[in-house]
Amino acid sequence: MNKDFIDFLDKEDPLRSHKKKFNLPPGIVYLDGNSLGALPKTVTQHIMEVVNNQWGQTLISSWNEFDWINLPIKVGNKIGQLTGAEHNSVICADSTSINLYKLLSAATQLNPDRKVILSDTGNFPNDLYIIQGLVKQLNNNFELRLVEPEEISSALREDVSVAVITEVDYRTGRKHNMANLTAISKTKGIKIIWDLCHSTGAFPVDLSGCGVELAVGCSYKYLNGGPGAPAFLYVSPELQESIQPPLSGWMGHEAPFSFDLDYRPGNGVSRNLCGTPGIISMSALDAALDVWKDVDLRLVRQKSQKLFNLFADLVKELCPETGLSLKTTFPESERGSQIAFSHPEGYAIIKALIDHGVIGDFRAPNILRFGLTPLYLSFGDVYRAVLILSEIMQKRTWDQPKYHERSLVT
Amino acid sequence: MNKDFIDFLDKEDPLRSHKKKFNLPPGIVYLDGNSLGALPKTVTQHIMEVVNNQWGQTLISSWNEFDWINLPIKVGNKIGQLTGAEHNSVICADSTSINLYKLLSAATQLNPDRKVILSDTGNFPNDLYIIQGLVKQLNNNFELRLVEPEEISSALREDVSVAVITEVDYRTGRKHNMANLTAISKTKGIKIIWDLCHSTGAFPVDLSGCGVELAVGCSYKYLNGGPGAPAFLYVSPELQESIQPPLSGWMGHEAPFSFDLDYRPGNGVSRNLCGTPGIISMSALDAALDVWKDVDLRLVRQKSQKLFNLFADLVKELCPETGLSLKTTFPESERGSQIAFSHPEGYAIIKALIDHGVIGDFRAPNILRFGLTPLYLSFGDVYRAVLILSEIMQKRTWDQPKYHERSLVT
Repeated sequence: MNKDFIDFLDKEDPLRSHKKKFNLPPGIVYLDGNSLGALPKTVTQHIMEVVNNQWGQTLISSWNEFDWINLPIKVGNKIGQLTGAEHNSVICADSTSINLYKLLSAATQLNPDRKVILSDTGNFPNDLYIIQGLVKQLNNNFELRLVEPEEISSALREDVSVAVITEVDYRTGRKHNMANLTAISKTKGIKIIWDLCHSTGAFPVDLSGCGVELAVGCSYKYLNGGPGAPAFLYVSPELQESIQPPLSGWMGHEAPFSFDLDYRPGNGVSRNLCGTPGIISMSALDAALDVWKDVDLRLVRQKSQKLFNLFADLVKELCPETGLSLKTTFPESERGSQIAFSHPEGYAIIKALIDHGVIGDFRAPNILRFGLTPLYLSFGDVYRAVLILSEIMQKRTWDQPKYHERSLVT
Repeated sequence: MNKDFIDFLDKEDPLRSHKKKFNLPPGIVYLDGNSLGALPKTVTQHIMEVVNNQWGQTLISSWNEFDWINLPIKVGNKIGQLTGAEHNSVICADSTSINLYKLLSAATQLNPDRKVILSDTGNFPNDLYIIQGLVKQLNNNFELRLVEPEEISSALREDVSVAVITEVDYRTGRKHNMANLTAISKTKGIKIIWDLCHSTGAFPVDLSGCGVELAVGCSYKYLNGGPGAPAFLYVSPELQESIQPPLSGWMGHEAPFSFDLDYRPGNGVSRNLCGTPGIISMSALDAALDVWKDVDLRLVRQKSQKLFNLFADLVKELCPETGLSLKTTFPESERGSQIAFSHPEGYAIIKALIDHGVIGDFRAPNILRFGLTPLYLSFGDVYRAVLILSEIMQKRTWDQPKYHERSLVT
């Protein structure tokens, strides 16, 4: 592959101007934005305003003066615009895990005669843990039925109460067909909860157009909301008043500040709020979302596919016979925004890459995973990353004891 | 009361040097630190370090390099030191509401034959909402038994599974006897979950000494962690391995990064973690807690009582026959760190006070509530606040239409 061609791709890239909105460390190729997105420059200034001025100077009055109280719905609507959600159908709150628990508990109650919760082995294990926790809490009154990802469509049968489906597989990048599966689920009376952790900000999502009823997702990956940024939750307008929140905290109460002794769920999606929102983290996300103001997600998708193809082609060309095996082998429409390879020494190779300034990540047992984040990743970045990967593979740089020590978080 | 005497109190105050650790707006008397604590100066710098350097420059590697992954237990231990908790018995996570839900669900399973959850009408309504949510979720298999605060001791009977008791009444400041009630509960086989929202940082709490088994609390009041700062949860060492977390997310898994398909609870209190921790908010709290490094909570308690007495005496002296009625009428040992009055025009009076630079808050239906935060409140502040209150009451400044309009958050 010719470097001039790479330069040409960057020159023609309609999204190239967005990279300057991010604070990226010099000399690094960051291919882990699908795990923790980079820092948008808007965030620093806004957090200082929220901490020093709002909290520090206006203190408690900021709940009114800076409308902190409505931040979950304000930020929710920003996320809603990126996911094809109806206005006031998304809230920002808590973690993905907790939001999934909320909707899962509520959804099982919408289908009281069915006792099967369906998911697939390509789901992020955390989602399965949340299901298992609820099942155990409810005295094993439900069964978690786990199928292979490719079987999920045929497993949407009429004994299923709720299906929990993560659109994009966190390891392989395989993408489920949201429109199809949702349509099937409706004919069978099944509620699907879509986990959009690897979708939102990665490509266009059309919740309303696909007829999705329930969804959750995080904001610290492609939305660049910061480490452990608050998550989101979507309920379609038709379903909002049917939801019985199990975590019925005061922020979801019809009148939180009347301090009645009895819980009454609030109107709409806001009843799914629970405790006091974390204003500092949510404000960071609020500012981070401004990055998307003038971004066409269709262009993001196009560039993501081009980055993918370039990455795959370069590995084929520059890393032949190194044992690296492409794991993201699905057709273009069935991929998220990442590329994964397997290698028996995957962990050591990722560590060597990081040492050489290329940050990807490892997923057990043997997956090298590279996130493609078109807003701040250039074609030149991908070129550089694969050149370094090629060198590591050829010189077997990774084959040193220090690259084999395991750290806690991988 | 002589101003010289007030100056003397401030001069002799062993905690007077701590006020300079906080960024307080000039000209304001802040009596709402029991709702949102003031901004410690350490927070600004630390948040910038976490955002710009850790997130911005070290990116995903910060989970290891800056030990983000252990922040919930690190911050938990700092809170544990302020509450008499054993090492590694407190985690920082989620909201008080959600932590209460976790422990409540787990505690009911420890007493499977009992179906009564006990609480009192002086509890913060949110805690009752959380109980009601769980009861409804579990098909009304439990009964919430609500008694008056003064009846709670005799209501600890052998049919009670779990009691949810907030130590300090959010309106009146009445403080339950933690040691006594805990001792009674143990003879009856009842699990008490203590809510410490108005306790931690307000006076010495001795969880271990009192034999407490379960507790939750927030960090944005007397701990000054910032708006909606993450909350905490305590489980006594003896009980930690018996807890079955209903919100069984990956951060509470025995091996979160092995990505097994099955949930296995982790060791100790950490199994109560759920989703990815919000690092920015938790780091703000982490820095805010450094304020307490050289603080003796017994001195905090002593000063709080003196501030209370001064406040009460001054109101008696300067606001006679104004209809202000002291609500915090309990003996010294049975009070938290606040002073409350009732007045039919309480809402309008609080608004007038705020307009005149004295920030307290209103609690329906008629309570004026003033938080006493000894680290940054001087005797002179209290003197000034009551002088202004006196002027408002005498001139009936509050008796203007603008003070009667209701805002959303009060």
